[in-house]
Amino acid sequence: MSLRIAVVGSGAIGSYYGAKLAYAGSDVHFLMRGDLSEVHHAGLYVRGKGENFRLAEVNCYNSTKEIGPCDLVLIAVKATSNTDLVDLVPPLLHRRTMLLTLQNGLGNEEFLAEHFGAKRVLGAICFICLSRTSSTEVERYDYGHIKIGEHGRAPQLRTQEVAGEFTRGGVQCSVVENLALERWRKLVWNIPFNGLSILAGGIDTAAILRDEDLRRTTLGLMEEVIEAANKCGYRLERSAASQQMKRTETIGPYKPSTLLDWEAGRPLEIDPIWGEPLRRATAAGANLPRLEIVYTLLKSRGETGRGKESAAKMGNRSS
Amino acid sequence: MSLRIAVVGSGAIGSYYGAKLAYAGSDVHFLMRGDLSEVHHAGLYVRGKGENFRLAEVNCYNSTKEIGPCDLVLIAVKATSNTDLVDLVPPLLHRRTMLLTLQNGLGNEEFLAEHFGAKRVLGAICFICLSRTSSTEVERYDYGHIKIGEHGRAPQLRTQEVAGEFTRGGVQCSVVENLALERWRKLVWNIPFNGLSILAGGIDTAAILRDEDLRRTTLGLMEEVIEAANKCGYRLERSAASQQMKRTETIGPYKPSTLLDWEAGRPLEIDPIWGEPLRRATAAGANLPRLEIVYTLLKSRGETGRGKESAAKMGNRSS
Repeated sequence: MSLRIAVVGSGAIGSYYGAKLAYAGSDVHFLMRGDLSEVHHAGLYVRGKGENFRLAEVNCYNSTKEIGPCDLVLIAVKATSNTDLVDLVPPLLHRRTMLLTLQNGLGNEEFLAEHFGAKRVLGAICFICLSRTSSTEVERYDYGHIKIGEHGRAPQLRTQEVAGEFTRGGVQCSVVENLALERWRKLVWNIPFNGLSILAGGIDTAAILRDEDLRRTTLGLMEEVIEAANKCGYRLERSAASQQMKRTETIGPYKPSTLLDWEAGRPLEIDPIWGEPLRRATAAGANLPRLEIVYTLLKSRGETGRGKESAAKMGNRSS
Repeated sequence: MSLRIAVVGSGAIGSYYGAKLAYAGSDVHFLMRGDLSEVHHAGLYVRGKGENFRLAEVNCYNSTKEIGPCDLVLIAVKATSNTDLVDLVPPLLHRRTMLLTLQNGLGNEEFLAEHFGAKRVLGAICFICLSRTSSTEVERYDYGHIKIGEHGRAPQLRTQEVAGEFTRGGVQCSVVENLALERWRKLVWNIPFNGLSILAGGIDTAAILRDEDLRRTTLGLMEEVIEAANKCGYRLERSAASQQMKRTETIGPYKPSTLLDWEAGRPLEIDPIWGEPLRRATAAGANLPRLEIVYTLLKSRGETGRGKESAAKMGNRSS
């Protein structure tokens, strides 16, 4: 049985995984807006380590009504646009439609569960370095594998089926027992590196690791995230911190996605990566001064906005 | 007996206090560099709440050698230029010359003590909102009083004498028993507000207090500074935090000096305000995660520099 698949959110992530599935023969339907006619005429190009293909015929649509009911919906909008999903998703639903969020951080599964019913919801954690280099081209720099799991449940037959669909599409995909635990595990990396790369002045992972104090702060944040996960009931092992530090040393200079969003003036996914983990762990009794200050500063800078920051000037007072 | 006074560092602070003393008849000699000839011809203007005067004849010099030995030297260079003092100060010294640092934070008295002998050293804590509006004009927006004390000693007769000199110059001046304790007390304000105003995206004190999370972070930092002071042996009372919060609410929107330095692209006094307090308190066994992260981020951003930050760009990767 082949799955009818919709992709909602055709940025780098949605375009890449959707194109991989479609190129391998899956029945994929993309929601597109501004880029629709260009993609319709030119197709979608995917380039990267060991792959270089053009999806010539892209099923792309202006609205989810035109797509109609699907078996699986890949949710790949930025979390800052989640409220758009309230109107976009319903035309895609039949009784057993699965919603698979490819988004970062915590709270996205819960958002989908709240609006469309918890039993529809699965989550994917994407380990990938990607760039949308034009409206018709995506370039993959590194990695690509995903971990998928059920929201609040152990894996089911359907979870394996979805994983199989990705595997057939050439995407390395594993099924995880405990999706939330794996989300926390990824946050052990994202919370320090995505946050510090912006707050320390727009620097990459190698620059963070080179500075002894930033390195100590990174480790301090990682330990807080592990503490937070455990307070929330997820048995994330303490060694996750040193493992991630070591792994990061081997990947070379890398700019986290949030830094790229920041540099490009795009909205930041502050709530799923920092806000929601902080709220949950604080409610569970954790004391997280580093996470709290990183969240607070990012939120404030996100609101001030990159543009406004350089503009603010006034007299030359002294205190 | 009138004191022969030198002012080393003729920015806003040095110019203001030097001009006040000279205008009241003290024997003041200014070290100046770029602005010497302009000040020599035009004099120094001081404007502010309830004062508006011109010091017509300014004793200004190109080198401290020309000034020669003095009884009191006001040290008003930025702490980031302290190493310049090693050459600048010796020509000003006789056996009993006093060095009074008007600089911010911790470590400046120690620097002077190390190079010129501890018994010469006094410190002043300046509570003032000032601006150097041109090379010949200083404008005072608010406050102006100073607290002076001896470095590592109780006040002496000479401390009173120096305070008297300022008082005669129309500067409200009190002598403090324990200079270091008062430095820590001022840090309870400077550490959070100077730091967060930069890190939160270039915002003033009122914007910090308006944001509930920044307000909580401010209070958390204040509590850490009080804890740090106590670990270092200074009995700074816990209520200092709430007192300073209340005081800050009454002064209205205000940009701390470090933010103005940042906006103007000047070097930041990171070490005396954050680095040295952190090092001392950590050595005394304090755990200061908030101060540590604020220091680390400021240091990194100070090194990256405001200009470089906007320049850094690369591909649009995603993680």
